[in-house]
Amino acid sequence: MARKKKETSTDIRSLIATRRDGGVHSRADLDLLANAAADGSAPDYQLAAWLMAAYLKPLSDAETADFTLAMAGSGQRLDLSGVPRPWVDKHSTGGVGDKTTLVLAPLLAACGLSVVKMSGRGLGITGGTLDKLKAIPGMTTEIEPAAMIEQAKKIGIVLAGQTADLAPADKTLYSLRDVTETVSSLPLIVGSILSKKIAGGAETVVLDVKCGSGSFNPTREHAEKLADALVTVGKKAGLNVYAAITDMEQPLGRSIGNALEVQEAIEVLSKPEDQLGSTSKRFRELVRYLAALTLRVSGLSPSAGDALERVEATLTSGRALRKAQEWVEAQGATVRLDDPSWLVRAPEIVTVNAAVSGCVSKVDARILGEIALELGAGRKTKDDEIDLSVGLEVLVKIGDFVTEGQPLITIHAKDAKGVQFAQDRIGFAVSVVSTPVPPRPILVRPA
Amino acid sequence: MARKKKETSTDIRSLIATRRDGGVHSRADLDLLANAAADGSAPDYQLAAWLMAAYLKPLSDAETADFTLAMAGSGQRLDLSGVPRPWVDKHSTGGVGDKTTLVLAPLLAACGLSVVKMSGRGLGITGGTLDKLKAIPGMTTEIEPAAMIEQAKKIGIVLAGQTADLAPADKTLYSLRDVTETVSSLPLIVGSILSKKIAGGAETVVLDVKCGSGSFNPTREHAEKLADALVTVGKKAGLNVYAAITDMEQPLGRSIGNALEVQEAIEVLSKPEDQLGSTSKRFRELVRYLAALTLRVSGLSPSAGDALERVEATLTSGRALRKAQEWVEAQGATVRLDDPSWLVRAPEIVTVNAAVSGCVSKVDARILGEIALELGAGRKTKDDEIDLSVGLEVLVKIGDFVTEGQPLITIHAKDAKGVQFAQDRIGFAVSVVSTPVPPRPILVRPA
Repeated sequence: MARKKKETSTDIRSLIATRRDGGVHSRADLDLLANAAADGSAPDYQLAAWLMAAYLKPLSDAETADFTLAMAGSGQRLDLSGVPRPWVDKHSTGGVGDKTTLVLAPLLAACGLSVVKMSGRGLGITGGTLDKLKAIPGMTTEIEPAAMIEQAKKIGIVLAGQTADLAPADKTLYSLRDVTETVSSLPLIVGSILSKKIAGGAETVVLDVKCGSGSFNPTREHAEKLADALVTVGKKAGLNVYAAITDMEQPLGRSIGNALEVQEAIEVLSKPEDQLGSTSKRFRELVRYLAALTLRVSGLSPSAGDALERVEATLTSGRALRKAQEWVEAQGATVRLDDPSWLVRAPEIVTVNAAVSGCVSKVDARILGEIALELGAGRKTKDDEIDLSVGLEVLVKIGDFVTEGQPLITIHAKDAKGVQFAQDRIGFAVSVVSTPVPPRPILVRPA
Repeated sequence: MARKKKETSTDIRSLIATRRDGGVHSRADLDLLANAAADGSAPDYQLAAWLMAAYLKPLSDAETADFTLAMAGSGQRLDLSGVPRPWVDKHSTGGVGDKTTLVLAPLLAACGLSVVKMSGRGLGITGGTLDKLKAIPGMTTEIEPAAMIEQAKKIGIVLAGQTADLAPADKTLYSLRDVTETVSSLPLIVGSILSKKIAGGAETVVLDVKCGSGSFNPTREHAEKLADALVTVGKKAGLNVYAAITDMEQPLGRSIGNALEVQEAIEVLSKPEDQLGSTSKRFRELVRYLAALTLRVSGLSPSAGDALERVEATLTSGRALRKAQEWVEAQGATVRLDDPSWLVRAPEIVTVNAAVSGCVSKVDARILGEIALELGAGRKTKDDEIDLSVGLEVLVKIGDFVTEGQPLITIHAKDAKGVQFAQDRIGFAVSVVSTPVPPRPILVRPA
């Protein structure tokens, strides 16, 4: 056990006791905790004890707001003052096939917003934006804070990996939560998400809370609690924050896997809606909803109708695609998005077809996510390598009518063993029944 | 953070989650936890998270018994099979002036019991037997397990410090509890006390649960809960266990401080009752009660009356003192107990006298313990050095009538500053009133 200054240790002990007894933390208490977590002056075992006490005696909304601000203040904060307003950020709680940022960020920037965003890597069945961007040759996401601000000033969009200096308290506490079974505490989740947004400098934040088998909110009730807590606490912490709940019972869009998701994102940025497949259309609907919401709540559109019109025009005119090109080039990309022939392709591509005619009643996001993970598209543990080329293409959604022999899923695998593995399991993920099944709306609860 | 085998870590995580959710641990679960704590394969932060979960979702009696056995089994266990039965041990939950073991252990051995005991060092206002024994020149308490058994076979008594090999899981968890605010959990306290008794090999265990300002059980209710839990869990874990609750509102006996307590212990072993002062008489009463209880419950005395008679005869005949001499010599002492002129004395000895005549209404154990601690008789932190010579002699007890000018307390200090400090505070600890006050029975609840 590390020895530390008696002063801090004693204070941390009194914080642990307060939390343990369900008492109330002041902002000063939480600053002390966050700073001690950030500078390493509190040992892991004391932070772990506090985390378990906070799991079982949850922070109130007011305490969570203070906790969020304390973690945001535990390191550097991006100063966007030279960047044109409005400053927006979006965050998804994570799902299967969730490539929303790849389309939404350049679309919003093309609409005139400044999008400054930090993203993470994927773990388990939920992918990470940083991994997907690795499929674009030359592109980097390792950008220093000063260079981020420079790029945001110039082109209105920048997307980087988390830097160690932003909300370092969250970094320490998050890695401890992972190994002490204290991840699934609502106030701790809320504090972790929002502290990074605040440290990233945004004023308007749009949150996409996923709900369904492919997310960590299996039930609507759980998702609603999280969305409500994010908004309540975010407002208390001074953010202009909105949270939509969207469906993750089936995968988002067509593709699951890094290069495949980049390909689909480019299609949605470049093709008219009617040229997209059934599942990509559903993804486009989410992008359009979130983009219009952001325009409206950031004050750039006076009404929902105006916002939707602007979004549609920005997509169909090609302005969003051009902004995306500008963006990836600013971050080192050496390729043209309008000709994505450079995307890596898996050596084995095999289609699974419908065995019977009928209506699709199930396309399980969790099972398909697990298959893609097993194929190599994701990480089971933090140190795993990702295969950018592999994954699944999901060609049907719940409520679609299919005929016998029609393609349902395309498997992209690195070898025949992978194909076999996926083929053996897809039957558990996709069902076709003889009676009509209503489609699942992408929007579960608007913001 | 230390990296460990994935296997153990995963299992510990599931144990943390079970505890967190108020589930039930199996004996196998608790063996895994205890072994991981003992061999260091579980990192401190996971043990800390489990401890806080166990604090807030307490172990049941059955789980606590399993936890106790798991910790007892996490290292070596003393094998007393060559030592004559009955094998007894006693334990006090700790108080001010508690030198009971110094008299009780040789007294019981002189009565024909085998007393094999491990003791601890003092911390805070509660003293430790190991520290008191340091006041006997030449005496050691660092004895290897094999030598302990040899000595017990030969003379029926041995008293040593905790060895690292006995209940090592408790050692790890105890030091973590201290810094994670999880000390005051009843099941964790019970497991810690009893696991060491079981690992020490005893079959009959007599527990002295202290109650009052000078103990960590401020209320009778708290002490009763602890006593009941110790007996219930101890029986489940296979011990022949009894717990008496005794008073710690005022200090036990006359002396507080290491050499002073050895002096008083020798007096009680050697002098007839009527030659003892008011406070030492009260201490003798406790010794006699606990000794008689132990004789009866270990099967050596058929009745309470017989037990008390034997105890009294063993004390007054000098057999207890001779056994004590045999004991300390076996552990290296170079002095005669019947002439304790070798005891260190503090340079400054000053008596505080009664300012008025009346009845003693308060002799606060906590305040007097704190004064003795400040004089140097105890440790504020684990690494503090103890001054064996300093302390207090408490000459009156609640209910005693005193006349103006009669000595109440004798201060033994290393310098004039210490004397001044004690003099300034003794008024808060001792009160004399004009109306009679009933004495406080030493026995709060018999076993």
